[in-house]
Amino acid sequence: MKVLKTIDLLKVEIENIKKSNQTIGFVPTMGYLHDGHLSLMKEARKQTDHVIASIFVNPLQFGANEDLDQYPRNLERDEQLAKEAGVDILFCPEVAEMYPFEMPMSIQVHKGTNVLCGQSRPGHFDGVATVVMKLFNLVQPSKAYFGQKDAQQVAIIMNMVQAFNVPVEIVQCPTIRESDGLAQSSRNVYLSENERAEASIIFESLKKACDAIKSGILNRKEVIQRVKEHLENGMGEIDYVDILTYPELEIQEKLSGKVIVAVAYLYEKARLIDNDIIDIEEENRHV
Amino acid sequence: MKVLKTIDLLKVEIENIKKSNQTIGFVPTMGYLHDGHLSLMKEARKQTDHVIASIFVNPLQFGANEDLDQYPRNLERDEQLAKEAGVDILFCPEVAEMYPFEMPMSIQVHKGTNVLCGQSRPGHFDGVATVVMKLFNLVQPSKAYFGQKDAQQVAIIMNMVQAFNVPVEIVQCPTIRESDGLAQSSRNVYLSENERAEASIIFESLKKACDAIKSGILNRKEVIQRVKEHLENGMGEIDYVDILTYPELEIQEKLSGKVIVAVAYLYEKARLIDNDIIDIEEENRHV
Repeated sequence: MKVLKTIDLLKVEIENIKKSNQTIGFVPTMGYLHDGHLSLMKEARKQTDHVIASIFVNPLQFGANEDLDQYPRNLERDEQLAKEAGVDILFCPEVAEMYPFEMPMSIQVHKGTNVLCGQSRPGHFDGVATVVMKLFNLVQPSKAYFGQKDAQQVAIIMNMVQAFNVPVEIVQCPTIRESDGLAQSSRNVYLSENERAEASIIFESLKKACDAIKSGILNRKEVIQRVKEHLENGMGEIDYVDILTYPELEIQEKLSGKVIVAVAYLYEKARLIDNDIIDIEEENRHV
Repeated sequence: MKVLKTIDLLKVEIENIKKSNQTIGFVPTMGYLHDGHLSLMKEARKQTDHVIASIFVNPLQFGANEDLDQYPRNLERDEQLAKEAGVDILFCPEVAEMYPFEMPMSIQVHKGTNVLCGQSRPGHFDGVATVVMKLFNLVQPSKAYFGQKDAQQVAIIMNMVQAFNVPVEIVQCPTIRESDGLAQSSRNVYLSENERAEASIIFESLKKACDAIKSGILNRKEVIQRVKEHLENGMGEIDYVDILTYPELEIQEKLSGKVIVAVAYLYEKARLIDNDIIDIEEENRHV
């Protein structure tokens, strides 16, 4: 596996791959890799000729009071894990390499940002879209892999690809969970021992929503209430619980079609998100 | 020459060209082609294997009170001219093909828009950047050709390419002029006979600036004043006259280095722009 820190070195590699007409699978990450990231890399390994992953903690997508400086990093361990997962090139630029000057322009997301994480993280998805556009242009992948855990991010990146005609296919992969159901996340490392012991309530609360819908409750507010009630047993605080159409992320009071049940839950030092995507017609067939 | 109206048909062509590892030269236009456009196509013909031109009058870059509906169109004539200039593929999509839904996001330009045309055309360069990003993603050219006449546009697109790491080289080609010096423009067709007869004063006013600088006058305001004085002889109105560093487009009271002298002049139905780029150190060597 090659570890590249500069755009110039990456360009040489990309040019050579393109000349040979081989496909590139791309997994952009912020590092501190967990099984979720590794599952994306393994999927890319199966589907494409060259797997390129990036590790870049993108300042543009962090708010002023967020955890940019504290965001966990361990490049040495990440290199080992990425190599084992079959990555060919690991691109891990410094901030000054990606942003050598103040950005003279950026992508501004108008749709899908007034809900879920967009509400508590203004500008977050502008930063995500901007850096992902840069990375797509640098890596020129035919497929790019994202985890369902960040479902709003995936929806917005799919919108971006469509809106700007980016020649890449977005592959959304399932959330990878710990044995108790907690979604794997780099931010889980912020949890205290007690918080970690109970953090599966987030996953359980999503199951409550799924059960309610399966039992025929299709009133959005009522299902949200069930989720909230379960989360109120925990020692954290609810940031949001919502149910929206997916991937449009629109409010629909009587649930139907494909919906996302999404939760953000605040522990002392960790803001955790999780979601479940439910196809209601599909579920009803099983009832 | 192939004339393509849909993205799907264009994609098939681009894929085939990419597979053969040949280079693409791209000339994006709004049609109603003149010698300026044709010079770009001919340059692309010389430098690259496949020449693709687009004709698309992009609604996003027109303000509410601008000439979107009146913008001159003549596709039949354009096809003939493009073919003669050596274009291989002419892409001329309808608006609904380029914007099948309201854009869920767009590029917002923060730098270089508070001067020149950016002042009188708010949002114009956001629309230009957004459509050019779309077209670059669709065509995937190795080189793209723009005329110096729209110098602010070229500067902003160069900024975009750098900011988003777009894998394309921007080639800036000289302004093509009528025999009396008037810069060729699709909008020249709006001029009345009297206006056309005197419209070379715009070009002459730029020469006044160049002469002043050559004679050692390096005070920005003083040079601007010379240009304005000349334009005041005309029957139109000055929209702006400015001198800025190029391509940074910053104000510099004591002129040095590379500067752009830029003019926008309003006739009854036509807003015409023109510019000259002067390397002051270079000029001084000749003095």
